[in-house]
Amino acid sequence: MATTISPAISTHDKLLRAREASAELLLLSTAQKNAILLTMADAIEANAASILEANRTDLQESGLEGAMLDRLLLNPARIKEMAKGVRDVVHLSDPVFEVLAEWIRPNGLQIRKIRVPLGVVGIIYESRPNVTVDTAALAFKTGNAIVLRGGKEAARSNQRLAEILSNVVGVPEGAIALLDSSTRDSVGELIKARGLVDVIIPRGGQGLISFVVENSLVPVIETGAGNCHIFVDESADFEMADAIVINAKTQRPSVCNAAEKLLVHESIAAKYVPRIVKKLVEHGVEVRGDEASRRIAPSIVPAGPQDWPEEYLRLCMAVKVVKDTDEAIAHINRYSTKHSDSILTRDEANARRFLRLVDSAVVYWNTSTRFTDGGEFGFGAEMGVSTQKLHCRGPFALAELTSTKYEVVGTGQVR
Amino acid sequence: MATTISPAISTHDKLLRAREASAELLLLSTAQKNAILLTMADAIEANAASILEANRTDLQESGLEGAMLDRLLLNPARIKEMAKGVRDVVHLSDPVFEVLAEWIRPNGLQIRKIRVPLGVVGIIYESRPNVTVDTAALAFKTGNAIVLRGGKEAARSNQRLAEILSNVVGVPEGAIALLDSSTRDSVGELIKARGLVDVIIPRGGQGLISFVVENSLVPVIETGAGNCHIFVDESADFEMADAIVINAKTQRPSVCNAAEKLLVHESIAAKYVPRIVKKLVEHGVEVRGDEASRRIAPSIVPAGPQDWPEEYLRLCMAVKVVKDTDEAIAHINRYSTKHSDSILTRDEANARRFLRLVDSAVVYWNTSTRFTDGGEFGFGAEMGVSTQKLHCRGPFALAELTSTKYEVVGTGQVR
Repeated sequence: MATTISPAISTHDKLLRAREASAELLLLSTAQKNAILLTMADAIEANAASILEANRTDLQESGLEGAMLDRLLLNPARIKEMAKGVRDVVHLSDPVFEVLAEWIRPNGLQIRKIRVPLGVVGIIYESRPNVTVDTAALAFKTGNAIVLRGGKEAARSNQRLAEILSNVVGVPEGAIALLDSSTRDSVGELIKARGLVDVIIPRGGQGLISFVVENSLVPVIETGAGNCHIFVDESADFEMADAIVINAKTQRPSVCNAAEKLLVHESIAAKYVPRIVKKLVEHGVEVRGDEASRRIAPSIVPAGPQDWPEEYLRLCMAVKVVKDTDEAIAHINRYSTKHSDSILTRDEANARRFLRLVDSAVVYWNTSTRFTDGGEFGFGAEMGVSTQKLHCRGPFALAELTSTKYEVVGTGQVR
Repeated sequence: MATTISPAISTHDKLLRAREASAELLLLSTAQKNAILLTMADAIEANAASILEANRTDLQESGLEGAMLDRLLLNPARIKEMAKGVRDVVHLSDPVFEVLAEWIRPNGLQIRKIRVPLGVVGIIYESRPNVTVDTAALAFKTGNAIVLRGGKEAARSNQRLAEILSNVVGVPEGAIALLDSSTRDSVGELIKARGLVDVIIPRGGQGLISFVVENSLVPVIETGAGNCHIFVDESADFEMADAIVINAKTQRPSVCNAAEKLLVHESIAAKYVPRIVKKLVEHGVEVRGDEASRRIAPSIVPAGPQDWPEEYLRLCMAVKVVKDTDEAIAHINRYSTKHSDSILTRDEANARRFLRLVDSAVVYWNTSTRFTDGGEFGFGAEMGVSTQKLHCRGPFALAELTSTKYEVVGTGQVR
C-alpha cells in the first residue's frame, strides 16, 4: 500500500510540509472536510485487521502490564469506537470562518473578525492509540494540520492509524504527520519549532506536561493535572455529600477530574469526618488527614506537607478540617492545580462566594468534580482540559483549535 | 508621602503580594473600579510637579538623544494625556463576569461560562513612561494585578507614577507593582514565575520580545514586530495606490504597522514601479529592490536576502515584482511577521483570496496598513498588537485581559 508517511522524512521536513498543508486545508469547504472524515471512519473499519496486527506487535514488545497495557490495547470494539468518534466529529458545527464581529468605522473601513484555523497543531501524547485518531479528526475538521508525537510503546499502532488517515483521498499531503517516537529528539524539535508550529498540546502525565511547558518555544495549552477538592460546608446535606465524595474519589480514580482532597467545615467535622472516612475505607480508599481530622478519626494516616499539592491518581484521599468557606477557598487557591473544585452546601451565599473566588477552570456547587469533560459539558468532543488561563480554560474542543483574524475592507483610506 | 512601593521588597515578594491582591480585586464592583480610576487620573494631574521632577532626572542621566530621548520625555501636555487616557478607560465597558454562555445539561447541571480576570499580568517595556499608566489602568479595570518592569532609563518617572497610582485609596496593596529596573534579574524572575504570574506581555523592540518569548515559562502574548507588505495588483487604481503606499511607509515609519515591503504585479511593474519609486524618494525613502524592479528602475539599490524578513522601522522600503496574487500571498506568508498586509486591487476575487489566505493578524483590501491599532479599530484602548495565534490576535485591549471560568450548579449529580 502506498503511504504518505515515511520514516525517512526528517522531523523538520514533516513540519515544513505540515505548514504547507495548512494552507491547502484553508481551501476545503465544510462539506469537503465532512466527506473526507466519513471516508476516514470507513477506512479505519476497513483496515481493522492491519491495525490490530500492528497493535499486537506493540503489545508484545511493550513490556507493559495491567492498566498501562490496557491503555495500549486495541480490539475490534475499540476500533469501532474510534471510527464512531470520527463520525461524531462530522456532526459538530465547523467553527472555521465563523464571523465573530463585524462593524464599520466612521472612516468607512469595514472590519470583520473571523475564526481561522490555528495552522499547525502539535500533539505530544502517551500510550493510548485512540488519541491519534481523535485528535487528527478534530484538527482536520478545524482546518489544522496536525503533527503527532505519540509514545514509543504505541509506535506501530500509531503509524498504521496515521497512514490510514493520511491516505484518504482529499487529505493534503503532510496534513496528518506522525513523528518518530524512537527518540526524544523529535519532541525537542517539535517544541522548538516556533514559526512552523502554532500550538503544542501535551496530553499525558505531569512529567510530560511539565517538560513541554518548561522547554517549548511554541505556545502551549497546558492540560490535565487535577488536584481537585471537595469542600463540605456546615450546611451540606450529608447524604448528598456521601454520594458526591464517593463518586468523585472512586468512580475512576486515575483521571484528572477525580477528587483528591476533602475539606470539611469544623462545625460538622466531628460528625461528618468519621462517617465519610468509614465509607471511603469501605471503597478501598487510603485516607490521610491533618491533625484535626485525625483527632476525630484516629484511623486516618497523617498527611505530610507533600500531600496537599499532590495529584494521587489512585484510591487515596487527604482530609483537612477548615474553619469556614474562606479558609477552604484560600487552601484550594494555594494548593489546587486550578482544574476542578466543588462546594457542597445549602448556603447560597457561601456557594456564590466559592464559585466566584476559587480560581479554577471549573467550580462546582453540589456536584461531583467528575463532570469536567467535553462530553459531559455537551461539546460532543474534547481535545483536553486546559488548566491555564490563556486562550482557553477547562474542557476544550473545536472552537479552541481556531485563532481569529481581522479582514478589513476599505476604499483607499489612509491615516 | 507614604508609599506602598519600596525597593526593599524583593521581586518574589512583590509577585506574591500581586497574587494576593488579585484575589482582592475580584471583590471590587465596576462602579468601585471606575471611581478609583477617576481618582488615579486626578492624582496624576495633582502630582504633575513631582512626576516632571523625576522625569527630569531620568532625562539628564539617560544619555539618550533624538527620538529615544523624546520617547522618555514627559511634559505638562503629556501628563494631561496620561490622565485623560485613564479617564477614557472608565468609559469602556467592564468585561469581568460577563456571561459568555449558559446552558442546562440533560442531567440538570447548570453550566455558565463567565469572563474572569487573568489574575496577575506582567508587562516588560522600554522607555516610554506613559506605558506605566496606560497598562496599569487597563489591568485595574479588568480586575488584574499588574507587575511592571520598565526600562532603567525611565526608572524614576515610572517609580513616581506607580507610587501615585498605588497610593490611591481603594487600590489593594501590591495590585500595581513596579520591579527594580537596575538589573536584568527582575526580568528573569518575572518570566520564570509560572503559577504566580498568568501572562507576560512584552512591549518594545524585537530584541526584548524575542528574549521574553524564548525564556519565559509564563505564557506570553507576543506583540509588535511588523514586517508589513503592500501588494499592488494589476488592476489597482494607481492614484489610490500612491496615497496608500506613501501613507503606510512615511506617515510614521518607526511603528509596527508601517509598511516595509512593496510587491507589484509584473503586468503593471514597468509603469508603476518607476512612478512609486519617484514618489518614495521624494518622501526621503531609501528604495531597495529585487532584480526585476531594478531593471525597470535602475536607481533602486539591490535588496539582499536579509531584506525580505527585516522590519526596517525607518524610511526604507524594498520592492519586489511578483507574477500574480498567489505569488504575493506565498511571499508574504514566508516573510511577514503575520502582523498587517494589504492588497490594492479592483479585482474582488483576488482581494477575497488575499484576505483569506494571507496568514496575518490583520489583512487589508484597498487601505493603508497603518490602521492596525486599538484606537483605529474603535476599541478605545490598546494593550498591544498580538502577532501570535493563541489567546488573541491583532490589536487587543480589555476583553483580552480576561480568561474564562465555568461555574456549574447542581443538585447532587454524580457520574
